[in-house]
Amino acid sequence: MTNPVTIDAVPGTSYADITREFDAPVEALFGAHADPELFVQWIGPRRLENTITAWDFRTGGGYRFEQRDADGSVYAFRGMFHTIRENEIIIQTFEFEGWPDGVSIDVIRFEALPGGRSRLVDHGVFESIETMDAFLKEGMTDGLEQGYERLDELLARG
Amino acid sequence: MTNPVTIDAVPGTSYADITREFDAPVEALFGAHADPELFVQWIGPRRLENTITAWDFRTGGGYRFEQRDADGSVYAFRGMFHTIRENEIIIQTFEFEGWPDGVSIDVIRFEALPGGRSRLVDHGVFESIETMDAFLKEGMTDGLEQGYERLDELLARG
Repeated sequence: MTNPVTIDAVPGTSYADITREFDAPVEALFGAHADPELFVQWIGPRRLENTITAWDFRTGGGYRFEQRDADGSVYAFRGMFHTIRENEIIIQTFEFEGWPDGVSIDVIRFEALPGGRSRLVDHGVFESIETMDAFLKEGMTDGLEQGYERLDELLARG
Repeated sequence: MTNPVTIDAVPGTSYADITREFDAPVEALFGAHADPELFVQWIGPRRLENTITAWDFRTGGGYRFEQRDADGSVYAFRGMFHTIRENEIIIQTFEFEGWPDGVSIDVIRFEALPGGRSRLVDHGVFESIETMDAFLKEGMTDGLEQGYERLDELLARG
């Protein structure tokens, strides 16, 4: 059984809310976002291999990672951590380097649920509706669903 | 004569475009955003005294500054520089610490105009319509207009 991903995009705006529950405590969910050795194992679709090229997980730090497909094509992403509060919130910028200056900001909230479960709500705000539509169309949703399934598997391995 | 500030906010969205022309070359306009000793002289309304408490003007750096009024009240602002390209663009996050997590991202473009003049277009994207409305209502527009007038004066002193 897989928990569903819900994407709420309000028409005419440039933001979308991604909601996903996990069968793991909030500390483990947050930790899989904080620790590069965990993050690298789940972010993005299964067919791409991740490499983290920069990681400084603190308020004021930043990150960069690359995703490589079987043909050797590389997709790189980078951003800054504007705010981090452990087990509660990550506010970060995000940019696909193949879409220069198409930056977005994610306000990712982590919530504890009863029974050792947790919920993630990622409020993504894009600099334009065009950028948001491009991301939603270019398989961001596949990447999200598969990424969160891989995160389920990682959390289940404990 | 003062160049007008134009604020275009599209109803129902959480972004606004601020456009302002300056009677100075783009290099001087950009420099007044880059150099903390210049920035401190013009940002915000006249009645507030600025102090820069952090400044690292590079892609991946960050900033923080405080504005103090005659009563001693302090308003602090901070953010990260996601992208900087000299005389062309600054992409930065922005947060008023008195409105926690109400972060916005500014895509500030600098353009050279004929006759040694220049134009700034600040595309501000807020994480919610509520945050944008609060900023527009709470005197952001006064701060902008007065700030840019002070910037005119600074640039005229050359």
